[in-house]
Amino acid sequence: MRNIKLILEYDGTGYNGWQKQKHGMTVQNKLDKAIRTLTKEDIETLGSSRTDSGVHARGYVVNFKTNSRIPAERFKDALNTKLPDDILVISSEEVSDDFHARYSSKGKMYSYTIRNNEVPTVIGRNYFYNYEKKLDIEAIKLAAQYFLGTHDFKAFQNKGGSVKTTVRTITQLDIEVNNDIIKFYVAGNGFLYNMVRIIVGTLIMVGIHKIEPSDVEKIISEGIRQKAGKSAPACGLCLEKVFY
Amino acid sequence: MRNIKLILEYDGTGYNGWQKQKHGMTVQNKLDKAIRTLTKEDIETLGSSRTDSGVHARGYVVNFKTNSRIPAERFKDALNTKLPDDILVISSEEVSDDFHARYSSKGKMYSYTIRNNEVPTVIGRNYFYNYEKKLDIEAIKLAAQYFLGTHDFKAFQNKGGSVKTTVRTITQLDIEVNNDIIKFYVAGNGFLYNMVRIIVGTLIMVGIHKIEPSDVEKIISEGIRQKAGKSAPACGLCLEKVFY
Repeated sequence: MRNIKLILEYDGTGYNGWQKQKHGMTVQNKLDKAIRTLTKEDIETLGSSRTDSGVHARGYVVNFKTNSRIPAERFKDALNTKLPDDILVISSEEVSDDFHARYSSKGKMYSYTIRNNEVPTVIGRNYFYNYEKKLDIEAIKLAAQYFLGTHDFKAFQNKGGSVKTTVRTITQLDIEVNNDIIKFYVAGNGFLYNMVRIIVGTLIMVGIHKIEPSDVEKIISEGIRQKAGKSAPACGLCLEKVFY
Repeated sequence: MRNIKLILEYDGTGYNGWQKQKHGMTVQNKLDKAIRTLTKEDIETLGSSRTDSGVHARGYVVNFKTNSRIPAERFKDALNTKLPDDILVISSEEVSDDFHARYSSKGKMYSYTIRNNEVPTVIGRNYFYNYEKKLDIEAIKLAAQYFLGTHDFKAFQNKGGSVKTTVRTITQLDIEVNNDIIKFYVAGNGFLYNMVRIIVGTLIMVGIHKIEPSDVEKIISEGIRQKAGKSAPACGLCLEKVFY
């Protein structure tokens, strides 16, 4: 059997996340159905991670095994004709038999988009979190540096994950501001459940001076979920890239 | 009766345009229903113009007459609790009795957004036209100047309009480029049916060197629809502002 790797983009607005559900409106349900129609095989894809309802992806990775004779590169266009218009295959290629979208992953990069404007907007509302109070970007940038490196991120996970250790390494936390749009780019070797959304929720608290930048160090070391900020809404989050 | 003016934002993706239809999924159907629920009156709003299916608005203007005692400024919040999440009232105020959203209008500004990228994307796909061939921005800017001023824009209207004269004045045609996003801002005293979309479609032809910038002058003066470009898709168009 050949092992095919796909890179996917999807608009998570209309989906209950990635992971398949019985008769569910999930990205995996749609993708697996499209591949089955194409290959006439009872395949199931392996995804790089779960994503929550409403979360988007620009570089989601899956792999699946197939006996189909369809050339690997052809899957891209063939699947795009069968997928709904909110899911797009960016590339398809054959990979070695031991490639596993999840277990082979060495890390990921997410983006989180805030629109910082006192007047909300409906245009593009599914792709950012509109935060109405003015955020202090300099304070947020000062706070962001404390997340970098290897820490126990116990305070930055919601219930629902199942992990052996809560230690993770954050390698990048960049903040780009363009008019009222604030984009966070967070990369690391792995993420706890809702970790990026809680980091952003905490940085928002810093941005309105409810948390001092230097307090972030203590919040991390104390490991108490309640001391960190709320999870920022799903719609602002996008899985940008999976590293192998 | 009082005359109330509203400024609306809407995401046109899910609607058959502004104009009400019997049992139709239009913005006016939704808005009129919300106002009727609130005022218990059989009101009908007057809109500043029709918009096509899929076209968005950031500054759409309507007015309506009411005997309701609701303070004019309260309509904003009261209506926002009753409207779907793709329609937003930005402001509400009382205006003089002779104000008419359409007939009092002195002009409008539209924006048109192109994403110029060989790789399409699903994220934000309802808010721009993804054009895959590389566009020559300098050629487009040269061509754009020919639209400025007062001209007979007969070549830049599609069937479906009903106007006495096809002479219009374009006062602004600005082009802003930000990475792969190209934004056109077009303002004028009035627009023929699909006029902005045909102007953009023509500028796209200039951008791939199928039309020379200087040919635009001739296309305008000859007045033959077929010599201009195709109408660019609805999703890239947004009514930004109505001038009074």
